[in-house]
Amino acid sequence: MEYRKIRDEGDDRETGIEDVESLREKSVLLSGAVLDNRLASVGETKTDSHRAKAKWKLKSVVTLALTILTSSQAILIVWSKRAGKYEYSVETLKCAISLVALARIWKKEGVTEDNRLSTTLDEVIVYPIPAALYLVKNLLQYYIFAYVDAPGYQILKNLNIISTGVLYRIILKKRLSEIQWAAFILLTAGCTTAQLNSNSDRVLQTPFQGWVMAIVMALLSGFAGVYTEAIIKKRPSRNINVQNFWLYIFGMGFNAIAILVQDFDAVMKKGFLHGYSPITVLMIFNHALSGIAVSMVMKYADNIVKVYSTSVAMLLTAVVSVYLFGFHLSLAFFLGTTVVSVAIYLHSAGKMQR
Amino acid sequence: MEYRKIRDEGDDRETGIEDVESLREKSVLLSGAVLDNRLASVGETKTDSHRAKAKWKLKSVVTLALTILTSSQAILIVWSKRAGKYEYSVETLKCAISLVALARIWKKEGVTEDNRLSTTLDEVIVYPIPAALYLVKNLLQYYIFAYVDAPGYQILKNLNIISTGVLYRIILKKRLSEIQWAAFILLTAGCTTAQLNSNSDRVLQTPFQGWVMAIVMALLSGFAGVYTEAIIKKRPSRNINVQNFWLYIFGMGFNAIAILVQDFDAVMKKGFLHGYSPITVLMIFNHALSGIAVSMVMKYADNIVKVYSTSVAMLLTAVVSVYLFGFHLSLAFFLGTTVVSVAIYLHSAGKMQR
Repeated sequence: MEYRKIRDEGDDRETGIEDVESLREKSVLLSGAVLDNRLASVGETKTDSHRAKAKWKLKSVVTLALTILTSSQAILIVWSKRAGKYEYSVETLKCAISLVALARIWKKEGVTEDNRLSTTLDEVIVYPIPAALYLVKNLLQYYIFAYVDAPGYQILKNLNIISTGVLYRIILKKRLSEIQWAAFILLTAGCTTAQLNSNSDRVLQTPFQGWVMAIVMALLSGFAGVYTEAIIKKRPSRNINVQNFWLYIFGMGFNAIAILVQDFDAVMKKGFLHGYSPITVLMIFNHALSGIAVSMVMKYADNIVKVYSTSVAMLLTAVVSVYLFGFHLSLAFFLGTTVVSVAIYLHSAGKMQR
Repeated sequence: MEYRKIRDEGDDRETGIEDVESLREKSVLLSGAVLDNRLASVGETKTDSHRAKAKWKLKSVVTLALTILTSSQAILIVWSKRAGKYEYSVETLKCAISLVALARIWKKEGVTEDNRLSTTLDEVIVYPIPAALYLVKNLLQYYIFAYVDAPGYQILKNLNIISTGVLYRIILKKRLSEIQWAAFILLTAGCTTAQLNSNSDRVLQTPFQGWVMAIVMALLSGFAGVYTEAIIKKRPSRNINVQNFWLYIFGMGFNAIAILVQDFDAVMKKGFLHGYSPITVLMIFNHALSGIAVSMVMKYADNIVKVYSTSVAMLLTAVVSVYLFGFHLSLAFFLGTTVVSVAIYLHSAGKMQR
């Protein structure tokens, strides 16, 4: 049960396919990629360029928000213990925040085709899939600890970066340049290096079943992320809060089932809110906002930006922890941070070659 | 005196300036860099392309030889202890090998302006400089251990990679692309990561004087390497064996002085060859051949190729040691090797952008 507290920083619900190319073209334009031959067919007008700028701003803001929220999240985890009902509370809060945001939009703009809450079976049918994938992954998490210890699992979780990149390429059919692939490998190696400690070598003794489970979990996590992006981008004009609402309502449902199975007795005896300290509440808010930030990054940027953002958050967390908790930074951390920084540079430098 | 045994793998005498651009242009051509605008002015004929191919072959062979020799060198060091007279023996053997090679060339081609051993003061005046730089660096090596332990020194020696890159740029005025600079930073971080062990963090406690000495030593080592390249490339038609002879004869002289100062009593009492086991002799041969390979790399390639080659040798050494000595490879080693591999790819990918 202790292992329940260990959870991916990047496990929150995340963010469609068809119109992603137009978005990408704009972001490529903004990064000065005049060599991109697809641009020839775009025919940008002044309005388009204004819209592109606004979108770029939005993309930057949500990415920054995700980075800050994720890093403060990890710090809050040190302060607090996480209950089984925690996930449910986070999903509920995300639903509530999405509804409040929607109510404000309805008041301002009125109810339109794009921001009405009601949906069609055709639209909503795909929304439970990411939540179901995460559920399977979380179930597997209980079993992997028969083969790997908790710090080893933290190391193996970096496989998520590679799986996200590979599935992003295969499922969303979006291309990364060779330099960007190199950057992605470096991001994985750098994050892992930054987390190295004197016990890390034990992960090399992981039995075959452990590796298989770790790879399956990384694929599930990566697939859930990429699938969320596909869902959210499928209808770009659809209001993000409606999309979030439908994503989170299924998250609520799955977590309610998890409570029934695992914690029903404890909830009945002690009440749902037993053990909710102010820190827990703070964490739930932080986690909910991070989840929404992830959705926003999926809508206005992509899974790749999300992976870089959460990786930087991991490093920021360590630096902030030095001041807050007196942690010591290792040489491995400096080397890992150097490699991640070069990876970020290469990811943007690699864009221009496309 | 124990510290004497610790010595840079890349400390051997190394390899002029003006005509380096033509060589570089050919190698850029071979790597398919059709975008290189300098090519427009080259006007390649069939003979030129044949010569370029032959040069590329030569460059590859000497680089491969250096890599294999350096890695087997490090393995031989584990088997054997190194005497103070060792350096002197290596330099003497290198002189002898150069003379034998020259004798064969004279027999085949006759004595020409380019392969005659006699020299002018104007030509030879710069040859003692690399040897003198190494001498100063080796003297400093005795003092740095007041501030850093031996494994810490091994970590700090990776600063050589950065110093070589910076001095290569400043002194030889050769340009690296941004991607290639990124690759160089990665090479440094990757090599350091591969060497990490549970005591590596102690290097972070190195006092200020230790850092200054490590940086000065890295600059001396880098400067000696770059200066050797400048000397050897200054007159491209000059036979490499003559150039090596003059480099090594000064190395012999400086090491003879070092023996007089440090080991004179021991040599007088026990004889010069005391302690020379077959392994020692094998090592001296290996080290001498490595030194000559470094000179060849300086003549037909450059310091950057040399740094990559010796880095790969370091990794090869570790892998071979697993089989020979039952060493265990750490997770840090795998991560470092991954980063170094990506750095090598980026170094060649970065070329095409130039």
